[in-house]
This record gives sequence, C-alpha cells and structure tokens, in this order.
Amino acid sequence: MARTVGSNGARTAEAIRQAGVKLIYRHGYEAMSLRQLAAEVGLQSGSLYKYFDNKQSLLFDIVRDHMEDLQARVDEALAGCTTPTERLRAYVGFHLRYHMTRMAHVFIANMEIRSLEEAHRAEVVAMRRRYEGLLEEILRAGVAEGVFKVTEPRVSTYAIISMLTGICMWYRPEGRLSQDELVIIYTDLVTGGVAAGVLPTAAAPRQLKRA
Amino acid sequence: MARTVGSNGARTAEAIRQAGVKLIYRHGYEAMSLRQLAAEVGLQSGSLYKYFDNKQSLLFDIVRDHMEDLQARVDEALAGCTTPTERLRAYVGFHLRYHMTRMAHVFIANMEIRSLEEAHRAEVVAMRRRYEGLLEEILRAGVAEGVFKVTEPRVSTYAIISMLTGICMWYRPEGRLSQDELVIIYTDLVTGGVAAGVLPTAAAPRQLKRA
Repeated sequence: MARTVGSNGARTAEAIRQAGVKLIYRHGYEAMSLRQLAAEVGLQSGSLYKYFDNKQSLLFDIVRDHMEDLQARVDEALAGCTTPTERLRAYVGFHLRYHMTRMAHVFIANMEIRSLEEAHRAEVVAMRRRYEGLLEEILRAGVAEGVFKVTEPRVSTYAIISMLTGICMWYRPEGRLSQDELVIIYTDLVTGGVAAGVLPTAAAPRQLKRA
Repeated sequence: MARTVGSNGARTAEAIRQAGVKLIYRHGYEAMSLRQLAAEVGLQSGSLYKYFDNKQSLLFDIVRDHMEDLQARVDEALAGCTTPTERLRAYVGFHLRYHMTRMAHVFIANMEIRSLEEAHRAEVVAMRRRYEGLLEEILRAGVAEGVFKVTEPRVSTYAIISMLTGICMWYRPEGRLSQDELVIIYTDLVTGGVAAGVLPTAAAPRQLKRA
C-alpha cells in the first residue's frame, strides 16, 4: 500500500489505515468517502493517492494485515501446547483475548468481506481457512484420541468461532467481568460442548422427532 | 410505514420493504440510495414517499417486523416444553431453523443496529433483550434445578446466541448437511456446554494460570 518511502510517509500511511478502520467500522465500507478519510487525517483527498491506490486497496490492506497478525499470534499461543485439550484451551483463550482488544478490525474483517473484489476476497478467505483450520485440526485430533466427541469437526469449528467472535458484539473493557473471567466462562462452554461421553446417545433421534 | 390504504398500496409497500432488505443486505444501509431502491421496485424516487417517511423509517420497519416475528414464533416453539432441557433444545432448534431461512433479515437486524436513530435503536434493543432474555431464563431455571452448570447466565446467553446466529455466515440450503442434522450438531454443543457435572472443578484456576 505505502508508496512513499521514509518514516514520515510510513507514519502517514499508518494514520490513513487507522482512520480507515475507524470510519469503516462506524459507517461501513461503501458509505465511507475518500473525502471523509482525507479530512480525518488532515489531508486533501488527492494526496491520499500518494499512499494507496484506491479505496479497495485500503480495505484489502486493512483486512490482510489483520489476518496476518491473527495467524502469527495464534501460532505463538499454541506453541508448547501438545494435547488436544491444552491446544483447544489455548486457541479459545487466544481468540477471545485478541478479539476483545481489536474489535473494530475484527468487525471489518468479518463484515466487509462482501466489499472485497473477487481476487482480494479469495486471498482473505484462504487466510481465514488456514486460521480456522487450526481449530478444526485440534478437534479432529481430540476425536482421534477419544477425548472429544465431534461428529462434524468443520461445522463445530464454525460454531465455536462464531461463539467466540461474538464477544465483540457486547464486550466493554469497563464491564463487570474481567477478560480472564470471560475466558473461563467461554472455555467451559466450548470444552463441555465437545467433551466425549457427555451426551446421551439418544440425543439425535429425539431431536429429529421434535423438529 | 404504509401510508396508502388498499391492497395495491400494501403490495407496493411490501415490495419496497423486500427490495430494501435485499439492497441493505448487499450494500449496507448507509450505502443504499433511495434512487437504487426506487429502481429496484420500478418506481420514481419521489413516489417512495407515498409508502414510507424516509430511509430511516424503512430500516426501522424492517428490523422491528423481524424482531416481532422472531418473538411470536419462539413463543410458539416453546409452548408445551416444560423442563429446562426441553426448553433449551426447543429454543436452540427454533433459533437455528429461523436463522437458516431468514438470513438477510438477520444480517440486517444484527449489523445495522448502528444505523438506527437513538429512539429506534432503543426499541429494537429492548425487543432483542426480551428474546434473548428467554434463553437466559431457561439457563437460570436449569441451574436452579441442578441440571445446568452456568456461572454467568447472561454471558452464556450471549455466547450461545452468537454461536447459533453465526450459522448465517456459512449455511447454504444446497449444502451437504440438512437443517435437521445441523440442529443436532449445534444442540449437542450447547447442551454439552451447559451440562452440570461435566467439567473438572479445577478448570478455572488452571485456565487463569495459563492466561
């Protein structure tokens, strides 16, 4: 994205990126105008093009940066965790803490996928698959070891990710419960949900009948 | 919303509402223009005002209708279910099926809360609290009866609702798994997650240390 070399240019590019996150979070990508963006960082609209090609490339830049950061940090969080249960706990705790601190980026990365051009979207979707695939592998490993009971690891992965990411919809740093307490509550829900030998085996037919 | 009496007027108002759902789902509320909306239903922009006051009242109308429908149907789904476990299964199954069939409405009701004016937003938030409060009551009843282990029913309610609603992000009617099969998978995750006596009591301190 940054076309201007040098520390001033890099600082301005970063300021534009941060203003973009703020404006897209507040108004949506399509509704954000370059005029608004320029005003937010104190530039003329025309000057923005020194720093990025167009609005689409700014969105892609924001989302790709976010996904790269997410992947690097989850790899760190899982390093040293060996059993499926340990890895599941580490993944859940990491995902929650990360999402509680980067709510605007997360909202954009989830909600503005629709606004990315096809090639950009494909790249972001592939990055997301890799990140979510880690959780799916953890679930599969737990099933193989007999500690998890998960009949469709990919579906359960989507379900768990949605549950965890949803914390962005209501979490406020000044709230009653600490991040640590919230991590425990969610971790218990997830580990209980996938634990082997918990559910009556008759659950499925009964559920089908009621449907 | 509908100002024009008579069946033609009602049909046009409904067509505008449906076109609004489609355009807001695709482009976002702020980005949707009244010109686009009028073109979608084959009217002149000025004619839209025969049917609704402005863009904001259309959004509010769409979201309020959705919330009213959701509440009426969950009440139906829970009628006759008495134990907390039965009620939890009924709520989960209902929420999933409803959300798998009204994905655009759900997306708008969740994502465009930010675009509602303060008074409208307050009304929608109150409706949502009532709907989600039902699940919270079910969890509290299960805790009181000793069948669920949930230390923070409100947090678990948010977590479960996010998990279930997230199905809108990936569900496709032509997919490999049926709605019935998906309901079973999610129900097992939820009921396992809140089941009493599943988790080691030492889970919390261990989790805190790792954090």
